[in-house]
Amino acid sequence: MISNGMISQTCKGQFAFLPLGQRVLDKLQKVVEDELNQIGAQKVSMPLMATAQLWNKSGRWERNGSIMFKTKNCENAEFCLQPTGEEMITEIVAHHGAGISDGRPLLLYQSTEKFRNEARPEYGMIRSTQFLMNDLYSFDVSLQSASNTYKIVTDAYKRIFFERLGLTEIQIVDAENGDMGGDVSHEYHLQNAAAQDHIALCRDCKTSTLWSPNIKCEKCDNKMESVPTVEVAHTFMLGTEYSSVFNAKGDDGIPYSMNCFGIGLTRLIAASIDTLSTGNAMRLPYPLSPFKVAIVLPKPTGAVTPPLDFAYSMLDTLEGLRNLDGDILIDDRIQKSVGRRLNELNQLGIPHIFVIQAKKSFQPHDHIRIEYLRTEPRSKEFIDCGILNHSQMLSVLRNNI
Amino acid sequence: MISNGMISQTCKGQFAFLPLGQRVLDKLQKVVEDELNQIGAQKVSMPLMATAQLWNKSGRWERNGSIMFKTKNCENAEFCLQPTGEEMITEIVAHHGAGISDGRPLLLYQSTEKFRNEARPEYGMIRSTQFLMNDLYSFDVSLQSASNTYKIVTDAYKRIFFERLGLTEIQIVDAENGDMGGDVSHEYHLQNAAAQDHIALCRDCKTSTLWSPNIKCEKCDNKMESVPTVEVAHTFMLGTEYSSVFNAKGDDGIPYSMNCFGIGLTRLIAASIDTLSTGNAMRLPYPLSPFKVAIVLPKPTGAVTPPLDFAYSMLDTLEGLRNLDGDILIDDRIQKSVGRRLNELNQLGIPHIFVIQAKKSFQPHDHIRIEYLRTEPRSKEFIDCGILNHSQMLSVLRNNI
Repeated sequence: MISNGMISQTCKGQFAFLPLGQRVLDKLQKVVEDELNQIGAQKVSMPLMATAQLWNKSGRWERNGSIMFKTKNCENAEFCLQPTGEEMITEIVAHHGAGISDGRPLLLYQSTEKFRNEARPEYGMIRSTQFLMNDLYSFDVSLQSASNTYKIVTDAYKRIFFERLGLTEIQIVDAENGDMGGDVSHEYHLQNAAAQDHIALCRDCKTSTLWSPNIKCEKCDNKMESVPTVEVAHTFMLGTEYSSVFNAKGDDGIPYSMNCFGIGLTRLIAASIDTLSTGNAMRLPYPLSPFKVAIVLPKPTGAVTPPLDFAYSMLDTLEGLRNLDGDILIDDRIQKSVGRRLNELNQLGIPHIFVIQAKKSFQPHDHIRIEYLRTEPRSKEFIDCGILNHSQMLSVLRNNI
Repeated sequence: MISNGMISQTCKGQFAFLPLGQRVLDKLQKVVEDELNQIGAQKVSMPLMATAQLWNKSGRWERNGSIMFKTKNCENAEFCLQPTGEEMITEIVAHHGAGISDGRPLLLYQSTEKFRNEARPEYGMIRSTQFLMNDLYSFDVSLQSASNTYKIVTDAYKRIFFERLGLTEIQIVDAENGDMGGDVSHEYHLQNAAAQDHIALCRDCKTSTLWSPNIKCEKCDNKMESVPTVEVAHTFMLGTEYSSVFNAKGDDGIPYSMNCFGIGLTRLIAASIDTLSTGNAMRLPYPLSPFKVAIVLPKPTGAVTPPLDFAYSMLDTLEGLRNLDGDILIDDRIQKSVGRRLNELNQLGIPHIFVIQAKKSFQPHDHIRIEYLRTEPRSKEFIDCGILNHSQMLSVLRNNI
């Protein structure tokens, strides 16, 4: 990602998103938020800093102290940069959260920066000290209703990972709730050589659990294999752990049953690039590629003007097509050879690339020849799809984007 | 905003955006980013923390020290939570910013959280310790080219404030560059009783400058008046102040000429509510209202079922209309009286409100009577637009949204 100009390291464990990387991040955020809006979740944003008092209430100021960045205001009051938001959202809901009923829980999410004062930030964006996370919190009047909500949100997570992003490699494993509290929890793991974690995977039936040596697959009795992974999401049924402390309760005086859900957006981008790329050609899930289409203008030969006007009139036509507005890159770096630019576009993993062939003069809708190339996940090289004319190109775009 | 459930104070000077307020914030961010994308600016996001070394290079670690929140990592290295981003963006561009040419400057912007360790955070979101800001930085090969870029961006700012948001009250005044460096700068002020600042305003010809006692209008020789305001944006021509320190320079070895531009997004929302509202009825610029349309379902009378199905089939029709997807609020709180709900919708400033009149049974496209009410900036009460039938309602929506 650094060599492609997508991100830039500003210090150990911290990364700026440059224009190409930012486009990927914005697209991922939109995919996730679209699916969450579909299930009736509402977007909020909470301050990044929280008071020591707030985190003392839950007991996590002490327990999580060493991994939190801390700061003080002018009056010497202590704050942390929040690694997660259970305390704050529960206190807010305790004050504002009216109208929660059975079958109509409150689902609130945000996509905000989280902080972890890691002793050894490494593996690039896989383990950084600041990261973008989408975190969702749900509030129900009963454990049974919360259990139903847990299913609704985890179903949305599956749609995000498997249907929208096509990351079929993700394994969902039963997990410990640990410091977060509650009884039920699942982790979403993507195979990754950076090996933050390991899961136990049965290669036959794809059953997976948290790794411990010498375990056998429950389904097919095979010995399970330790697979290096990175955790890209987690989901927790929290019960009343936080709601009882912060007094977030229904009209009947019973504390709400809570769940929380999180997707590490920046980490997911890094991990899916690792999974889908081959060699030094970067590959992303199709909906996240920084541009869907690139149009490569030829290098001028002799006295022939490069066909800029032609390309921009073509751009007008193409942007009128469904879903392509703002998603077309015109590669007009005509001082560089086509081959060199194609190499860069392949490394960026632009899915559809059209190379306009050199010609003496260009008029809109002229009879031009266009070379069509595609890139695909897990393939390092282009797929050459032959030569098209202008109307064939439009029909490719209409049918394949 | 607090009483309308748009925001919630989490501690002195910090606010969470609840679902209604978040919708306003997302819409404002989109308006600003749309206009900046139009002029070829590219979105990035930089880490919120920066090292002491980075800020020491520019000399601002010492100069700004008292108003910055500071923190330390595991290795005891010092960081600040950035109040602004000149140092970091210039260092990034020094490493990556190739291809800047005359007439083709580099424009980078972000919409991220900024921090100010205010001694007295007050006036709600007008002066908070964390705020969302859209900050844009431009890099040009010459001062002349930078001057042209300054005009392009400030023209985009004028479109945002005057055309898109209709905030005609904003006064643009020549300002001092102060701590930021450089020679040319303008502040954008909106009249506001919170009176963070004052400008001198000539009531006749609307000329304005920074306030000092007893100054006369240059244009019409009238005595100028001190007007309490809040600064919602600032723009600076920075010259080579940062580029020379961080070594951000062109192929010719000459440091880039820089400008920086910032809009305080959260503050702008608070200030425009102050400007446009009357009494306790909240008003926002039209494109920022949390929903464009509300449909109020009648309270069930006797044995009549509330027309939920009817409303949702209507919703399908309406969402097909241009720009209305996701922007319609169905007020189905049928246990509350219509009058009470209308009062709340007026306080929220929803521009178009349709009240479906009670009826024995409801079928899609039925002959129903719909009361049409509007709210407008600077007006506390509804404008009653009479009774419509279903097709008149559709035509109102087609022509007025």
